[in-house]
Amino acid sequence: MATPDSRDHTIIQLPEAISINLQAVRIGICGLGTVGSGTFNVLRENAGEIAARAQAPVLVVHVGARRDNPACDLTGVRVSRDIFAVATDPEVDVLVELIGGTTVARELIETAIRAGKHVVTANKALIAEFGNELFALAAEYNVAVRYEAAVAGGIPIIKALREGLAGNRIEWLAGIINGTGNFILSEMRDHGREFADVLAEAQALGYAEADPTFDVEGIDAAHKLVILASLAFGIPLQFSSVYTEGITGVTPQDLRYAEELGYRIKHLGIAKQGDRGVELRVHPTLIPADRLLANVNGVKNAVLVEGSAVGSTLYYGAGAGGKPTASAVVADLVDLARDLSAGQISRVPSLSFCHESLQDLPIVPMAEVETSWYLRMEADDRPGVLSRIATIFSDQGISIEALIQKAPQAGQTRVPLIVLTNRAPQGKVDIAVQQIEELDSVAGRVTRIRVEVLDG
Amino acid sequence: MATPDSRDHTIIQLPEAISINLQAVRIGICGLGTVGSGTFNVLRENAGEIAARAQAPVLVVHVGARRDNPACDLTGVRVSRDIFAVATDPEVDVLVELIGGTTVARELIETAIRAGKHVVTANKALIAEFGNELFALAAEYNVAVRYEAAVAGGIPIIKALREGLAGNRIEWLAGIINGTGNFILSEMRDHGREFADVLAEAQALGYAEADPTFDVEGIDAAHKLVILASLAFGIPLQFSSVYTEGITGVTPQDLRYAEELGYRIKHLGIAKQGDRGVELRVHPTLIPADRLLANVNGVKNAVLVEGSAVGSTLYYGAGAGGKPTASAVVADLVDLARDLSAGQISRVPSLSFCHESLQDLPIVPMAEVETSWYLRMEADDRPGVLSRIATIFSDQGISIEALIQKAPQAGQTRVPLIVLTNRAPQGKVDIAVQQIEELDSVAGRVTRIRVEVLDG
Repeated sequence: MATPDSRDHTIIQLPEAISINLQAVRIGICGLGTVGSGTFNVLRENAGEIAARAQAPVLVVHVGARRDNPACDLTGVRVSRDIFAVATDPEVDVLVELIGGTTVARELIETAIRAGKHVVTANKALIAEFGNELFALAAEYNVAVRYEAAVAGGIPIIKALREGLAGNRIEWLAGIINGTGNFILSEMRDHGREFADVLAEAQALGYAEADPTFDVEGIDAAHKLVILASLAFGIPLQFSSVYTEGITGVTPQDLRYAEELGYRIKHLGIAKQGDRGVELRVHPTLIPADRLLANVNGVKNAVLVEGSAVGSTLYYGAGAGGKPTASAVVADLVDLARDLSAGQISRVPSLSFCHESLQDLPIVPMAEVETSWYLRMEADDRPGVLSRIATIFSDQGISIEALIQKAPQAGQTRVPLIVLTNRAPQGKVDIAVQQIEELDSVAGRVTRIRVEVLDG
Repeated sequence: MATPDSRDHTIIQLPEAISINLQAVRIGICGLGTVGSGTFNVLRENAGEIAARAQAPVLVVHVGARRDNPACDLTGVRVSRDIFAVATDPEVDVLVELIGGTTVARELIETAIRAGKHVVTANKALIAEFGNELFALAAEYNVAVRYEAAVAGGIPIIKALREGLAGNRIEWLAGIINGTGNFILSEMRDHGREFADVLAEAQALGYAEADPTFDVEGIDAAHKLVILASLAFGIPLQFSSVYTEGITGVTPQDLRYAEELGYRIKHLGIAKQGDRGVELRVHPTLIPADRLLANVNGVKNAVLVEGSAVGSTLYYGAGAGGKPTASAVVADLVDLARDLSAGQISRVPSLSFCHESLQDLPIVPMAEVETSWYLRMEADDRPGVLSRIATIFSDQGISIEALIQKAPQAGQTRVPLIVLTNRAPQGKVDIAVQQIEELDSVAGRVTRIRVEVLDG
């Protein structure tokens, strides 16, 4: 670390009391896209307040990017086209990885760690898939890897789980953790639009990638859920264990019927700790319309956490975007600066629990996971059909909370039939659904969406 | 600090890896009421998880209370009727003050600080009124004073402001930070009940004190707001500067009219930073019904924070109660344990900003504070009255967004008249209201409630 006056190219207004005798924390940023430029600019714009909080100036000294970004004034900052030059720069204390992906980014971070640098990243895929290895490497080199920005953008949910709720046994958590998916479902509900139509708009608005697979198939949410679950339950990261179902199968019809029944459909990541292990699942979910989580709309994110002592707490905000994500990156940098001044960077374990007490809890197979269910089918409107269907559920020990026959859709001879079940394991529902689909009086597939009341 | 095996009276299940070679953090709890017993029991019940997160066992070794609490098994724990014995006990590392009040509690904490103990407290009045002095004393003795539980119970809002949002300039915050008041307003709205009636029920349920002044007059909310504002803006604590208005004047009629206009009435603490200084105010407020904050009901709390980088974030949960408040106390204890193992307890400044950069920003006088207004009056239903009233507003440069004449109430000859204004400083509204109250065609006082849209 260098004293700020040794870096005469950096012009930042600092309170006088701070600029004296304090060592600056020197930052290297790799990647100058939306989040990278946001981070660069937030560090500049809020330099005074950041230094007053961190008790040290936090200065960007080196930027690695394939090209400059006109949104950033890079005057006086070293710029490299080779991002690995940042990872090995002796003038850099902390490498901020904002290039995304899991190949080059992983190599970059490993290079930085081996060069003795701390790392801050917003890369959810990398942490979810290779976090265990990266944290172990960081421990070996006595450096920190921070990742507040990897989940739910600017919402400080990692800090809440690692620190703010540290007195609790976390029972479960449920989150809207993909803004693109939530935007699409919100638009479909508000305007009765079709999935493909809204997706095209989201792409035009820049909310969705040209290849929207990660968002709409639930992979992005699964990455984030894996991180939250590890922090909550003290288990290693295990991306391959998540059950992942996207929103491509949700129709305006289901959104409307859900609404009529007093529910909204949200795409949730859910992690739950129980006697038989941990449930890890991402899927569309009916939740009661009066819950706060049901009223989180557009690209916003929110995470609901149930703790044994505190009960339910909820954290809401912008889950993506340059400046909101930069807010989380900078929070990590301030945290690190505070730790560095204390000379101790491992006061909070990477996954909240100290490494020795991480437990490889079993993951509950989906066939055994119990929820209530919303089932929609097209059935003949004649005597005996309902009782036949009711008998199939009854034979599987599934009790029905509501069975509703809707008016037929235009041009249809069959009528939509909605079944709301009480809690039942997916295995039993699978069997019932298969038997129903085999009935002559039922056409096509049965649409199945889980229902959660999210009570304490 | 002692190794855990030196305290053979304490039976706690710890992961084997943790119980070896780690020094316990030894806690003394003063006060064994709802929060004290909650804290004692949370530390017991979640001991394994707490130790795994803190990387050290957190053990209660001494309890000071006027009487035992049957909810706590105090076997093997030293118990003193004189709480000052805890503050001077050489076996105690951290004193947890949960007796409340500002006289004995202050003396107790000062005694503990002088004896070199760290302090954790849930005492909002004490921090709001004497925090500046206590933090200075703690700095002198190189100990920490933590107070996460002092605001919004179990919601980790102090941590969010001091750390999670550290990259932001905080523009404003608005919170439902008194559960009793929110319960009363929620009941009045849902069931059209009168204030006094619901207050009596809240007292019977234990939500309100026998003397409800602190809750219903807004003093408790003002204590909490002062703390939030200091953390957000880097200003010293200044309880005497808060404008405080309670909920005793809110009527079922106003709640109903607000609802018809698309608003809800919530009792908010609002702190705002602007060119002319800081606004600090607690008052009933109309907010648009579709805002998350408008949908926080019953005894729950929520704080909405607007940061320059992150935009709006919201934090929601239980604002009071034994275990929720204990959750925050224990989070502070885990934080302290983590800091102690790092040998550095001042990594985060007490008020978020380092002491040298706290700024005595001016407080904006209420006459200059601009909001929109909901005004209700009883006016004669005859030609000329509306135009007379409209002229008074116009003369003060106050523009009217809506002017609505309601049907007369049973037995009344005059009609209720509702005026929604655009943003106007209170000083102008004061003059307009005085002139309206002097009109022969208007009876009695004008009811005035501020309106906030809480946009980013």
